[in-house]
Amino acid sequence: MALSVEKTSSGREYKVKDLSQADFGRLELDLAEVEMPGLMACRTEFGPSQPFKGARISGSLHMTIQTAVLIETLTALGAEVRWCSCNIFSTQDHAAAAIARDSAAVFAWKGETLEEYWWCTERCLDWGAGGGPDLIVDDGGDATLLIHEGVKAEEEFEKSGKVPDPESTGVKRLYQMQESGTLLFPAINVNDSVTKSKFDNLYGCRHSLPDGLMRATDVMIAGKVAVVCGYGDVGKGCAAALKQAGARVIVTEIDPICALQALMEGIQILTLEDVVSEADIFVTTTGNKDIIMVDHMRKMKNNAIVCNIGHFDNEIDMNGLETYPGVKRITIKPQTDRWVFPETKTGIIVLAEGRLMNLGCATGHPSFVMSCSFTNQVIAQLELWNEKATGKYEKKVYVLPKHLDEKVAALHLGKLGARLTKLTKSQSDYISIPVEGPYKPAAYRY
Amino acid sequence: MALSVEKTSSGREYKVKDLSQADFGRLELDLAEVEMPGLMACRTEFGPSQPFKGARISGSLHMTIQTAVLIETLTALGAEVRWCSCNIFSTQDHAAAAIARDSAAVFAWKGETLEEYWWCTERCLDWGAGGGPDLIVDDGGDATLLIHEGVKAEEEFEKSGKVPDPESTGVKRLYQMQESGTLLFPAINVNDSVTKSKFDNLYGCRHSLPDGLMRATDVMIAGKVAVVCGYGDVGKGCAAALKQAGARVIVTEIDPICALQALMEGIQILTLEDVVSEADIFVTTTGNKDIIMVDHMRKMKNNAIVCNIGHFDNEIDMNGLETYPGVKRITIKPQTDRWVFPETKTGIIVLAEGRLMNLGCATGHPSFVMSCSFTNQVIAQLELWNEKATGKYEKKVYVLPKHLDEKVAALHLGKLGARLTKLTKSQSDYISIPVEGPYKPAAYRY
Amino acid sequence: MALSVEKTSSGREYKVKDLSQADFGRLELDLAEVEMPGLMACRTEFGPSQPFKGARISGSLHMTIQTAVLIETLTALGAEVRWCSCNIFSTQDHAAAAIARDSAAVFAWKGETLEEYWWCTERCLDWGAGGGPDLIVDDGGDATLLIHEGVKAEEEFEKSGKVPDPESTGVKRLYQMQESGTLLFPAINVNDSVTKSKFDNLYGCRHSLPDGLMRATDVMIAGKVAVVCGYGDVGKGCAAALKQAGARVIVTEIDPICALQALMEGIQILTLEDVVSEADIFVTTTGNKDIIMVDHMRKMKNNAIVCNIGHFDNEIDMNGLETYPGVKRITIKPQTDRWVFPETKTGIIVLAEGRLMNLGCATGHPSFVMSCSFTNQVIAQLELWNEKATGKYEKKVYVLPKHLDEKVAALHLGKLGARLTKLTKSQSDYISIPVEGPYKPAAYRY
Amino acid sequence: MALSVEKTSSGREYKVKDLSQADFGRLELDLAEVEMPGLMACRTEFGPSQPFKGARISGSLHMTIQTAVLIETLTALGAEVRWCSCNIFSTQDHAAAAIARDSAAVFAWKGETLEEYWWCTERCLDWGAGGGPDLIVDDGGDATLLIHEGVKAEEEFEKSGKVPDPESTGVKRLYQMQESGTLLFPAINVNDSVTKSKFDNLYGCRHSLPDGLMRATDVMIAGKVAVVCGYGDVGKGCAAALKQAGARVIVTEIDPICALQALMEGIQILTLEDVVSEADIFVTTTGNKDIIMVDHMRKMKNNAIVCNIGHFDNEIDMNGLETYPGVKRITIKPQTDRWVFPETKTGIIVLAEGRLMNLGCATGHPSFVMSCSFTNQVIAQLELWNEKATGKYEKKVYVLPKHLDEKVAALHLGKLGARLTKLTKSQSDYISIPVEGPYKPAAYRY
Repeated sequence: MALSVEKTSSGREYKVKDLSQADFGRLELDLAEVEMPGLMACRTEFGPSQPFKGARISGSLHMTIQTAVLIETLTALGAEVRWCSCNIFSTQDHAAAAIARDSAAVFAWKGETLEEYWWCTERCLDWGAGGGPDLIVDDGGDATLLIHEGVKAEEEFEKSGKVPDPESTGVKRLYQMQESGTLLFPAINVNDSVTKSKFDNLYGCRHSLPDGLMRATDVMIAGKVAVVCGYGDVGKGCAAALKQAGARVIVTEIDPICALQALMEGIQILTLEDVVSEADIFVTTTGNKDIIMVDHMRKMKNNAIVCNIGHFDNEIDMNGLETYPGVKRITIKPQTDRWVFPETKTGIIVLAEGRLMNLGCATGHPSFVMSCSFTNQVIAQLELWNEKATGKYEKKVYVLPKHLDEKVAALHLGKLGARLTKLTKSQSDYISIPVEGPYKPAAYRY
Repeated sequence: MALSVEKTSSGREYKVKDLSQADFGRLELDLAEVEMPGLMACRTEFGPSQPFKGARISGSLHMTIQTAVLIETLTALGAEVRWCSCNIFSTQDHAAAAIARDSAAVFAWKGETLEEYWWCTERCLDWGAGGGPDLIVDDGGDATLLIHEGVKAEEEFEKSGKVPDPESTGVKRLYQMQESGTLLFPAINVNDSVTKSKFDNLYGCRHSLPDGLMRATDVMIAGKVAVVCGYGDVGKGCAAALKQAGARVIVTEIDPICALQALMEGIQILTLEDVVSEADIFVTTTGNKDIIMVDHMRKMKNNAIVCNIGHFDNEIDMNGLETYPGVKRITIKPQTDRWVFPETKTGIIVLAEGRLMNLGCATGHPSFVMSCSFTNQVIAQLELWNEKATGKYEKKVYVLPKHLDEKVAALHLGKLGARLTKLTKSQSDYISIPVEGPYKPAAYRY
Repeated sequence: MALSVEKTSSGREYKVKDLSQADFGRLELDLAEVEMPGLMACRTEFGPSQPFKGARISGSLHMTIQTAVLIETLTALGAEVRWCSCNIFSTQDHAAAAIARDSAAVFAWKGETLEEYWWCTERCLDWGAGGGPDLIVDDGGDATLLIHEGVKAEEEFEKSGKVPDPESTGVKRLYQMQESGTLLFPAINVNDSVTKSKFDNLYGCRHSLPDGLMRATDVMIAGKVAVVCGYGDVGKGCAAALKQAGARVIVTEIDPICALQALMEGIQILTLEDVVSEADIFVTTTGNKDIIMVDHMRKMKNNAIVCNIGHFDNEIDMNGLETYPGVKRITIKPQTDRWVFPETKTGIIVLAEGRLMNLGCATGHPSFVMSCSFTNQVIAQLELWNEKATGKYEKKVYVLPKHLDEKVAALHLGKLGARLTKLTKSQSDYISIPVEGPYKPAAYRY
Repeated sequence: MALSVEKTSSGREYKVKDLSQADFGRLELDLAEVEMPGLMACRTEFGPSQPFKGARISGSLHMTIQTAVLIETLTALGAEVRWCSCNIFSTQDHAAAAIARDSAAVFAWKGETLEEYWWCTERCLDWGAGGGPDLIVDDGGDATLLIHEGVKAEEEFEKSGKVPDPESTGVKRLYQMQESGTLLFPAINVNDSVTKSKFDNLYGCRHSLPDGLMRATDVMIAGKVAVVCGYGDVGKGCAAALKQAGARVIVTEIDPICALQALMEGIQILTLEDVVSEADIFVTTTGNKDIIMVDHMRKMKNNAIVCNIGHFDNEIDMNGLETYPGVKRITIKPQTDRWVFPETKTGIIVLAEGRLMNLGCATGHPSFVMSCSFTNQVIAQLELWNEKATGKYEKKVYVLPKHLDEKVAALHLGKLGARLTKLTKSQSDYISIPVEGPYKPAAYRY
């Protein structure tokens, strides 16, 4: 590996696949801006006062068109930004090109090796002359984890030469670090905002799961038996999408409450073993490991589709599959592989090598729902930066306060033509809720 | 009013509409037991040890067939029970008859006057010889509120002769009492259990709203424009039911997050003023007051249907309607009134006099979902009773712990043929969740 | 049986349950008129010219509120009308009372015996002094059949004293009579109008199946396994309703095309034998006989619900059930029976004694969709009457011409706020379709 | 234009984009075969007897992967085949390459000019030495039309040099030719088979409309206002897809029956003028011309998406758009153009230049539903070929008989795990339907 940083004419560093795709990236950025009203509203509201003036922000997050609008929102608010992706397959090269050319230091391309991935991550965090970032942008706490883990990983690499897989580091969570006292700085976990978890996870996946299935396989979903492993927010979105497209959906669950929710929607709850040889499509969404093992895959129907839309890539036993004696891999096209078992000569189709199929096989979540997630990010970073000197935030993990969560939602209503009702003073008094909100207690489940 | 308590041959007190309906009530109770697996499982698990032996339980809760199965579960666990309804229209007389004859002291009938309502409530709480109940069963904290308020109300009645409307007392909530230090005993607010709020409120209303509309009006829902005021759990259930039945649904909301959820489901968000003269069906679900005022009603289309499925009866401005100069009320049948305005000669149809339409016009929520809610009740009462001497619970409002919430769900899976997946030890370690649960953090939103 | 005709003060004959329910019937008639824009438009368009002046119309059709609006439309157009019901359970007594008092000769009540049924049918057809009707109103050809069969049946009754069950006479169809040359007069089979078959059958049942289930059993549909036998228009409506209410739906079919349609909607196709012991709700919609036999019923889960929404009552093997050795019938309430098998002591719940459950247990289809069906009737009768002397119609079965079918639909759009697009002249030329329609070829399937 | 035919080593003629894509095409063909059980069943049933031995088949039909499986089914039955596409954008180049290399003479590539298109069509029909095809495969009669028109067109080209646009020739239909007596040979219009029109048109578009939208624009459909022009089978599929994805759907219609169907599904019926400035997505499905004119497009919101999924490309006024004074076209990527109006500086996004967006922007209908359509084709061609000497078919347009339509459906059930019910003899007698079908009268609407 002999990677070298390149520089724009203005001297900004970058490493992307092909800078000449910047024009195409810019055209799609222009479209995305119209679909991301929350981020554009932040530019309008905060841009003039340049609140991030002097702030160095490092981000490790899928380098997509939507992320590009986020990055340019941060720079529009005065920040200096360096960026890498948090997944070796998730970069959209034309987005990276546009940002590299126009706005920030980017180190990301689709199809990085693990070595390249860690090199990009280092570049993203290296502000030169010993300096580090002032703020870190991440989605769900992974970027922060990578930094903490990266230190360890580098040490281990020094010793053993072993490069850790980024997808396997999310095991220990931010909250565990907080408990163990190893968290290095305060963090706001926007993943727990309602406008993130109940929108991006749910409606984002409802959109991008069928998108990924269609682009990867062109398979007709109607009439098929589809198994969704897990019925959390992501699983709910996936099950809804498959059901609406005409599949018969079966869910596997460990949690009786989520299972009962699925049943109330007419969805059967079975174990994977019950249906492994009957179903046509399998989707993992659990956040846990070892969900679909090679022993399951051996028993599947010919050309059953197996994919993962959960964050980490250990839901599907890719290692077991790759090392299965006599198995044959036929690459239909990038991110779509047919694996043929020697005994049966039948094959299964695995998407995106078991990684996030919506980013690997399609373009991830659409702009509008990512605008919700990323507006949370901007508001959270602003809060941390504004309070950096006040000691308001300790080295803990925080959740965005309810009124900011509601603000994020409010910024997205106009685009959809919605007209909210206003509480009267007397109604406000009656239910003891301020006219301007917040409208719900912290524990409200939506 | 000259009400007098009656007695069964065994000496148990009661006052119901018609004891001869007890056989009919028993037949429906038999059916309901099959649909209430959680309560039946409690009888099996706890019945033999008679944990409520010696406990006096007073309940103020819609006296329906489902409540009857709850009452008989409490008595099967050893309790002595006295009961009244918490709504003047919600009693099912055959259910009350069966309980009065066979199981517990009941004071309830459909169509009580307010005077009768308060008389019933007093009987329910009066255990003779100065004694009160050991435990109070309620749904959402209302029974407890009534007791606290009842004391005040009685005092006021002494002074002014004014009888309070039970539906107007829910304004101050248990949590407010807790804050102000006026709560008289510990309480577990099962309304905040997931297996209550996300099931009874959501799926219960999805079932019982169209049921009420059909029984009251026989109106075809398909093709109509339906306005749902509020998109909380109840509103979500109502909107889903109307949409699925073929209505075009419009939601009014004050909360931008809930509004954005509706939009993601393809539901338009407008204000009541925007649609008041265009819609065919109006449903209030807000928990707030003054949602549909007489000034709105005047502008509605001829035979627009106006109803409330929220707990309290002040969402619809019945007072404004009743006192509107020249308005004419035509009772089509009980709980279905057509109100004709003098200027336009057009009328609107108001269900259940603005009270809970699913209980007033139909039979309320179905047994299965009430089994979830009521199993929460049984488990909560057991916990309070078992810990009464230990001081574990202070005079505060508690929420059922997550593992009991999950247990309630688990008790309802078998009936629906579901088969849960079990975590392996290694998966359990990986995500730091016990094999037996609880599976989610407290703040999880489902 | 000693039935006697009664007379109103004006001398019109009738026999109903209770004439004092006429006021209640009138109130519901008033509501229904607002929901039946097609019939009301006929009154407006044709009323002034009194086209039915001098016509004697006999009708044999479920004597419901909606039929009452039909009858009064016929009388508003100048006809004299006599009416009976075509089903022993389907009369709404308040509707019959209002018509008897105000508009036409009615002979119908809910719960007729077979002897009473035939007496009512005779009264309906007997115009005195040897006269018969000029026109016959029926829905799907049944009234006409009954007249043809009635002649035979009376002859047989003379000989054997055996009273035929009206529900068993539909076997030979109008088209068969036509082929065999035994049809006595021309008929327009409005059941084949699009605005009948694709609306009443489909959307009517989507509405009234859950209505019947709820009123009869209060069972929660969500989470249940429901089997729909047949996926024609009625089956499609039933399956849609159950799916939307949260059931898991399984369909049985003989026709591979209809089966493939169900599969495309995510519905499993199995045989009754495959699922008989697993399902909770069974609905027959086939129009065929012997669909659910006693041998199936024996194997069902305790309290499985069995019902029929197809026109004839021989889809469910009631005879096999009634004569099953040791079986016990427990009537929960009228039209809701629990049948307990001696071997297992488990029971099944049969609705409406195997007859049309939506009319037996609820109020049938809602007014709006019946307005489509009945407007077809009025237009068809007008056509036959106007052409009675011209010989335009032979003794055959006809279908309403497309432009009248489209007219029926058009009359129902305004009520729902719809705004149609108009073809331009140039568009009309391009697709060779007149600006005013008809818009589709006869074979178009919608 | 200097196009020249190429030849394989075996001497078969072809002209495709890139023969080296044949391996990729073959891999996708292998996958598609598993999804096309009807075609594979034809190979199994008819392959051994080689019924097409000696038959020359020319096909003009979108040269996709699915069509490739059709072509290889025809060759497996013994035919010699020459092929071209019927749309300048719809060829999948890897499919064409695989067929050219392995199976048949193909003349097709994505992005033909009109001159190239006609050259390809000529090659397809030219069997050398004055010979023409024995059979013509088409979908909806277009190929046949092209041949008839082609003769005229060539004559006109001789005279005027004007090349006709293939998309503008479908105006006069086969049935019109039949009436005017100009049809040159018998034809079976499989487009009127139920297993074509109610599957390909409906469920195919339900699948491929969102696929095209996502690939072209990545726009989030949830929350958007989508207008579907036309509610025939294609419109029904599109509206269902958009609704399920969370859009608020509005339909425009000229036909009151179709309009009433939409209303029953909760869909609003308005005119395009009513909603043109409010909606986000516009889809034409009418089969008529001049649906969305430049004057509409001028009034749309910024970045409104405009596309056509109807067969011909004159539903959207591309000419008006292209010639609008000062309009600016910005190509985001192939088949996705943003057109900016000079007055407002706002733009609209037009997909596939107004042509079939699901083929232009995505991969068209999925294999399974095309298997239904193409199995109809194979069976129809077999019938024509087998009867070519018998005179059974005159120079008319025929529809596949019902039992063959049902057979097509039956061949697709096994793949989806369906189990049909069999009529008993006694049931068959009762409803006068043979045990083996056909199960429905010809006019049945499904």
